[in-house]
Amino acid sequence: MDRATLAARLRDILPADAVVADEEALRPYAGDALTAYRRLPRVVALPGCIEEVQAVMRLCALEGVPVVARGAGTGLSGGALPDESGVLLVLARMNRILDLDPVARTARLEPGVRNLAISEAAAPHGLYYAPDPSSQIACSIGGNVAENSGGVHCLKYGLTVHNLLGVKLITADGELLEIGGAALDAPGLDLLALVTGSEGLLGLVVEVTVRLLPTPAATRVLLAAFDAIDAAADAVAAVISGGIVPAGMEMMDRLAIEAAEDFVAAGYPRDAVAILLCEVDGEPDEVETQVARVSEILAASGATGIRVARDAAERARFWAGRKAAFPAVGRISPDYYCMDGTIPRRHLAEVLLEIERLSATFGLAVANVFHAGDGNLHPLILYDANAEGELDRAEAFGARILELCVSVGGTITGEHGVGIEKIDQMCVQFSALELERFHSLKAAFDPDGRLNPGKAVPTLARCAELGGMHVHGGELPHPELERF
Amino acid sequence: MDRATLAARLRDILPADAVVADEEALRPYAGDALTAYRRLPRVVALPGCIEEVQAVMRLCALEGVPVVARGAGTGLSGGALPDESGVLLVLARMNRILDLDPVARTARLEPGVRNLAISEAAAPHGLYYAPDPSSQIACSIGGNVAENSGGVHCLKYGLTVHNLLGVKLITADGELLEIGGAALDAPGLDLLALVTGSEGLLGLVVEVTVRLLPTPAATRVLLAAFDAIDAAADAVAAVISGGIVPAGMEMMDRLAIEAAEDFVAAGYPRDAVAILLCEVDGEPDEVETQVARVSEILAASGATGIRVARDAAERARFWAGRKAAFPAVGRISPDYYCMDGTIPRRHLAEVLLEIERLSATFGLAVANVFHAGDGNLHPLILYDANAEGELDRAEAFGARILELCVSVGGTITGEHGVGIEKIDQMCVQFSALELERFHSLKAAFDPDGRLNPGKAVPTLARCAELGGMHVHGGELPHPELERF
Repeated sequence: MDRATLAARLRDILPADAVVADEEALRPYAGDALTAYRRLPRVVALPGCIEEVQAVMRLCALEGVPVVARGAGTGLSGGALPDESGVLLVLARMNRILDLDPVARTARLEPGVRNLAISEAAAPHGLYYAPDPSSQIACSIGGNVAENSGGVHCLKYGLTVHNLLGVKLITADGELLEIGGAALDAPGLDLLALVTGSEGLLGLVVEVTVRLLPTPAATRVLLAAFDAIDAAADAVAAVISGGIVPAGMEMMDRLAIEAAEDFVAAGYPRDAVAILLCEVDGEPDEVETQVARVSEILAASGATGIRVARDAAERARFWAGRKAAFPAVGRISPDYYCMDGTIPRRHLAEVLLEIERLSATFGLAVANVFHAGDGNLHPLILYDANAEGELDRAEAFGARILELCVSVGGTITGEHGVGIEKIDQMCVQFSALELERFHSLKAAFDPDGRLNPGKAVPTLARCAELGGMHVHGGELPHPELERF
Repeated sequence: MDRATLAARLRDILPADAVVADEEALRPYAGDALTAYRRLPRVVALPGCIEEVQAVMRLCALEGVPVVARGAGTGLSGGALPDESGVLLVLARMNRILDLDPVARTARLEPGVRNLAISEAAAPHGLYYAPDPSSQIACSIGGNVAENSGGVHCLKYGLTVHNLLGVKLITADGELLEIGGAALDAPGLDLLALVTGSEGLLGLVVEVTVRLLPTPAATRVLLAAFDAIDAAADAVAAVISGGIVPAGMEMMDRLAIEAAEDFVAAGYPRDAVAILLCEVDGEPDEVETQVARVSEILAASGATGIRVARDAAERARFWAGRKAAFPAVGRISPDYYCMDGTIPRRHLAEVLLEIERLSATFGLAVANVFHAGDGNLHPLILYDANAEGELDRAEAFGARILELCVSVGGTITGEHGVGIEKIDQMCVQFSALELERFHSLKAAFDPDGRLNPGKAVPTLARCAELGGMHVHGGELPHPELERF
C-alpha cells in the first residue's frame, strides 16, 4: 500500500497528529542506536492507548502490512530498524505509570515509561527496579522487555525476565493477550518468558507489570587495579567461586580507563592495565563482611592496588567513569562498533587475550569495558567510517569475536539482542533444527510473518548461503542493507 | 498397534529386559501419586541411554503411537498417567550424574537422578541444589523439569526454571535438541523456559544441567504461634513487605499441627490455631540481624509465642514436623485430596477463612500446611473413598478452592502441575485466545499430538462443555476417566 493511502487509512483510526508520513518528518525514525543502518518506514504511527494500537494492528492485518515496534530507539542491534513497506509503531506516547503498589512491590506500566523513571517513582517507598541498562535514562520498559535487557546489576538481580510479573500483548491480528500475573507460578506454557526477549517477533507489548525490590540498606564499591588482563579476568572467577555474588562486577582495560579519565576524571589509576569495579550491597554488617572477603580474594589474585570508596560521593565518581566509558571512547575515535557477547567466566582471560591478538590482525584498536561478573563482553572496536574499508573490517572483526564466544561455549548476545546486526551469527549459534523450532514458534504467533520481518531469526536459506562461514573463520558477507 | 506387536517392535531396538508388556508387570506403572486415576499403558519401555530413547521415539513417530514419559512417578496431578494405546517411557534407568563442576557450580544429570542425590553429591564441595520438593528423596530431576517443581526454599531460591542452565530434549520425531547452556543469556526465543513446566507436551527431557549454590554459612529457624488464622496470614505479608526474604516461610493450621505432633513430636504448640516456620540463611551476622527483625515483626503481628531453634537438632525437629505433615494427616483420615493453588500473599487471610467456611458447607475437614511465603496453598481435604459420594464431594470442594484462587488473582497450580487433575480448571484460568496460543505452541513441537495426550492443556471443545462452570460456581462434571 502506498504511503499516502496507508497514511489516510491510519488517520481514519488515529488522531491526526499520531500519523507521520512526510519524508522529512520520517527521517528521525529511520533507525535506532545501531546507526550504520537506516531506512525510512512507509508511515509512522504514534498510538496513545491500547485501543489505538489494536486498531492499527487490525488495519495492518487486513491489508497485510508489516509492523515494526519502536520504543525510545536506544537499541544497539537494529531491532527497531523500520521496514520500508510497513508501519513503524512508536510507543513513546504511552508513557504513564498506571499503578505502583508499595505493599505488593509491583508497578504496572505503559511500554513507553523510561527505565529510570520506574526507580524514581519507587524511591519514596524505599523501592527500585533492578535491571539498569546503561541507557536507562532514555530506554523504555517496552524495549527492555523486547530485548530482555540487563545492566550493571543483573549479576545479582537478574535480567528483565527475572523482574517481570506480566505483560499485555497485542497479537498480529490485534487481539489482546494477558500474560503472567502476580502469583508465584502460572499453569500452562511459559508465555511470559517466551515473549520476553522475542524482539517484537511475537506481538506488541502494550503494558508491563514489574517487580520492585527494596533499596539495599548499605552499598560499597571496591576499585581494584591489575597489571595484566588475565590476572583481572581470573580475579573475577575467583570472587564468584569464593561464594560471593556482587551486585555488580565490571571490568575496564587501559584504553577504556584512559578515555574515561580524560572525560570525567573518575579517579582511576592510569598506570593500570585493567581495573575491576566490584559493588556489594545488603545489610550493613553483611556488606562489611563481603568487602573484607572480596578484598582478600582480589589481593590473592594479584591486584596491584585496592581502594574502597569512602563515601557516596566517591562511589558515584567510581561509577561515573564506567557509565561514561562509551561516550568517552567516542571522543577518542571517529566511530566505534560496540560488540555484545557472553562467555562462561572461566574463559574470560583466554578470550580477552585472543581479542587483543585479533586487534593486531585486523589493525583496529579495541577498548574493553564490560559486565565481567556475567561474562558479558562489550569490546568497542574503534574505526573511522570515512576511511576506505574500515567499517567492513570492523564488522569482520566483530563477527570473529562473536564466533570466538560461541567456540568457548558462550553466546552471540548478552543484553543487546540480535536484531539485524547479529542475524548472520545466529547461523553460527544454532543448528537448522533449532532454527526451525524458532520459525514454528514464530508462526504460532505470526503466521504471515508481518511482525518485525527479517530480524532476530534468520531464514534457513540465509544460513545456507552463509554455510562457509564456519570454515572460513568469520569472513562474513556484508549485510544486504542500504547503508549511508 | 496391539500390545504384542508393539512389544515385539520395541524388543527389536531395546534390550529384552527394557520392554514390559505383561499385564501384571504393567500394574505398577498404571498411575502416579494422583492415586485416584489408574490405567494400563499399552507397553512400558525402560531405555538406558539417549540413543535408545531416540529409537523408541522414532518407532512411535513412524507408527503414530502416543508417548507418555514417567520419572519416579511421584507427581500429584496425574501427569504420568499412561495412555492406553501408547508407550509409557520410563526414564528411571537413566540415573547417572554425568558431571559435577564445583568451580562453575554446575551439575550435568541424566533425567532419572533423584533430586536429593544432586545435593548429596554436591555436599562435599560445600554446594547444593536449591529446589527441594517434599518428595525430594524419591522424585527425579527430569520430572522436576517437566513440572517446574518448587519446594520449601523456592521463596528465596526460585523454582526449577530459575535453577536450570540447559536441557537435552528429544522431539516427537526422535531428534535431539540442545537447549540453553552455561552463558548468562541466550539469543533467540526462550526454549528453556518454554520446555520447563511443559509436562511432557513438547518433548522428552533426557539430560539436565543445573546450577548449584553454596551451602549457606548460617541457618536459623523461627517457630511462631498464633491464636487466629488471619493473624498468622497477615504476619507472612508483614515479614515480606518488611524487606526480608526468608529461605522458607511455612504455615500449618491446628489440624496439621496436631497430626504432626502425634506422628513425630516436633515440639509444636498444640494450643496454637496456626504456626509459622520461618527459616533465614546467609552470613552469620546477616542471619542474626534477620532473626531479630523477623521476631519483631512476628510479635507486632500478634504472635502469641516465638521460639528460635537453639541448635541444628532442634531446627531439624521443627522441619521434621512440616515434612511429615502429609503422611501425618494420612494417619488421621482414610484418604485425603492434596490441593495446590497460588494466590497473592495479601489475600492469604481471606482465602483461608473462606476455605474454612467451605469446609463446613461440604462437610469435609481440611488441614492446611503450605508455602505461605509464596502464597502457595496446599489444603488437604480429608475424605473416605469408601463412603458413598465423598470422593466426588472432595473433588467439587477442591475445584471450588481453585476457582477461589483464580478469583483473587491467583492460579490453579503452585508446583504440582495441571496434568489430568486440573485440566478442567484450566478453562477457568485461561481465555479461549490464550488456550489457542498454547495449542499452536504445542503443535509447533508435536503436530500429531502424540506426546502426553489429554494432559495440561484442555481442548476448546472441553472448555465449551464446561462453559457453565463459572456461573454455577465450581460444580464440576466428574472427569471422564476410569477410576478404581
